[in-house]
Amino acid sequence: MKEIKIHEVGLRDGLQMESEPVPTVTKEQWSEMLIDSGLDILQLGSFVNPAKVPQMADTDELFEYFKNSKKNRKTLLSCLVLNEKGLERAVNADADMICMGVSASETHSKKNTGMTTDEALERIIKMAIESTNLGKMVQVSVQSAFGCGFEGRISEEKVINIVRRYVDSGITNISLADTAGHAYPEQVKRLFSSILELSDKINLACHFHNTYGLGMANVYTAIENGVTYIETAFGGLGGCPFTKIAAGNVCTEDFIHSLHRNNIRKDINLEKIIAVSKYASGFFVKELPGLVYKTGGLKY
Amino acid sequence: MKEIKIHEVGLRDGLQMESEPVPTVTKEQWSEMLIDSGLDILQLGSFVNPAKVPQMADTDELFEYFKNSKKNRKTLLSCLVLNEKGLERAVNADADMICMGVSASETHSKKNTGMTTDEALERIIKMAIESTNLGKMVQVSVQSAFGCGFEGRISEEKVINIVRRYVDSGITNISLADTAGHAYPEQVKRLFSSILELSDKINLACHFHNTYGLGMANVYTAIENGVTYIETAFGGLGGCPFTKIAAGNVCTEDFIHSLHRNNIRKDINLEKIIAVSKYASGFFVKELPGLVYKTGGLKY
Repeated sequence: MKEIKIHEVGLRDGLQMESEPVPTVTKEQWSEMLIDSGLDILQLGSFVNPAKVPQMADTDELFEYFKNSKKNRKTLLSCLVLNEKGLERAVNADADMICMGVSASETHSKKNTGMTTDEALERIIKMAIESTNLGKMVQVSVQSAFGCGFEGRISEEKVINIVRRYVDSGITNISLADTAGHAYPEQVKRLFSSILELSDKINLACHFHNTYGLGMANVYTAIENGVTYIETAFGGLGGCPFTKIAAGNVCTEDFIHSLHRNNIRKDINLEKIIAVSKYASGFFVKELPGLVYKTGGLKY
Repeated sequence: MKEIKIHEVGLRDGLQMESEPVPTVTKEQWSEMLIDSGLDILQLGSFVNPAKVPQMADTDELFEYFKNSKKNRKTLLSCLVLNEKGLERAVNADADMICMGVSASETHSKKNTGMTTDEALERIIKMAIESTNLGKMVQVSVQSAFGCGFEGRISEEKVINIVRRYVDSGITNISLADTAGHAYPEQVKRLFSSILELSDKINLACHFHNTYGLGMANVYTAIENGVTYIETAFGGLGGCPFTKIAAGNVCTEDFIHSLHRNNIRKDINLEKIIAVSKYASGFFVKELPGLVYKTGGLKY
C-alpha cells in the first residue's frame, strides 16, 4: 500500500449538519487534540455565509487561534470556500490549503451556486489559479461525482471531463466527493482508474459518505486504485441533506485503526482521535456512527 | 465480478446473541420471506444443545416445516453442527447443506469443544467425509481465522495449514470466518490469495463481523481475491461474544443493494429482505446496524 494521507473534515462536513452549535472554544479544543494526533490535514471549517451555515461562522476566528503555532505544526490547516468572497477570507486567514469544487450534478450545482456545472467550473478554475499564484496549496473537487440525491445517475464521462479541465488548467490535487453516498466499489474503481490515465501528475483524494453502508469499502477500493488522500470525519460525523437519515462520513478513527492493523501510519495517535469522538458524543448527547471510539482499538 | 452467492446466516448467527427468544412461527415467517427473495442459501439454525443456546432449540422443527416445499425451492437450506450428535440431527432433518468448522485459536477451540484445534480438526474432517458420503453438501470453516478475542493474533500459516488439511481430505467448500471482527483488507487479500494457490477446486466463502467498521470493506476485498460465497445477516444482526459491544454481521440487504448498484444479482428481491429487517427491528424494538432497511434502496 502506498503512503496514505488523512484529511480530517469533521469540523466542517461533520458539524454543518448538526443543529446544536459548537462553541468556538470547544472547536479549538477538538482541533488541538486532532492536530496533536498527527493527522496530515485538518479542515477547520468553511468560509461561507454565516447566516446560511451558522456552524461555520467562526472559521476566521479558528484560523486566527492557530496562526501563531504555524511553524511548530506538522498538520496542514485547510478550509473550504465556495466563492471569491470566501477565497479572500481564506487568504486573509492564511489557510495552508484551500479546497473548492463544483458539482457534477446540474441540479445540485444550480441549487448551491445558481450556476450550471460549466459556469461554476470556469469560476472555480479561475479561483484555483489565483490561489496557486498566491502561493497557496489548492485542492479542487467534483461533488456528487458518484450519483446525486436529486438526479440519480451522474455520467462518469461528465466527471472525467471536469477532471480533465482541472488538469488542463494545471491543478493536480483533485478530490472526488460522493456527496450523497451513492458510490459503490466497481464504480469507484472505474472512475479513479480512468482519471489516473489522464495524467501521472494527479494527486487523488476521495470523500465518501456511508449512507448505504459502503463508505469504508469505497475507501479501500479507492486506495487500490491510486487514491492517497482520504477525507474522513472523527466519530463518523456528518450527514447528507439528500437522504432521510443522517449518514456520516467515513469515520477517521475506524479508518486509522484499520491502517494500524496493517502497520501503516503508526505515527498517528489513535487514542487522541478517539478522545475527540468521545468528547463529541458527549457534547451532542448521542451515539456517533463510528465504532472504534466505542470498542477501543485492538492492541496487537 | 464473478457470480456472487449469498448465504444468509441471520437466523443462526444473528439470533443466537439476542436475549429475546424468537417464536418458531416468527422464524418461519422470516424464513419464508427470505426464501421468497431468492437468496441462494438460508441457514435455518444450528443443531446444538438447546440448554446452551435456547434460541436454536427449534431448528429441527424449522426444517420439518420446510420439508414439503423442498422440490419447489431454489434456496438451499443450511445448518450449523458442532459435533456428531448435531450431525445426526441435521441428516434426519434433511438439511441441504451442513456447515461445520474448527477454530484456528487454541483458546477458542478449547472453550468451544474442549479440544485442541488439531483434535477438533480430525473430528470435523471425519464428520465432513461422513456427510459427503451420505450425499450431503458440506461446508467446512476456519473460525477466528483473522484474529481472536482471547489470543489476538492468529498465525496465517496455521489457518492455511487447516485449509490444506481440508483440501487434502477432499473437502472443497471452505469458509474463513472472522469470528471476532479483527480482519482488515490487506490480511483478507493475503489469506484468500494464499489459499487459492493450494488448489483450483476450492469454493471460497467468507464471514465477516463489523466490530471495527471493516465488514463490507473485507467482503469486497474477499470478492476481489476469489471468494464467491458471502455470508451475511439481514439487518446486520449478530454479535460476537468477545467484544464489549454487539457487532453484527455484514448486513445482507446493504450488500445486495451494493450488488444491485453494480447490476449484479438483480434476481434477488431486495424489498423482501428489507421487510424482514423491518419486522425484526420491530420485534426486538431496536434499531439494527443495517442502513438500507432504513433509507430504502436507490432506484436507479
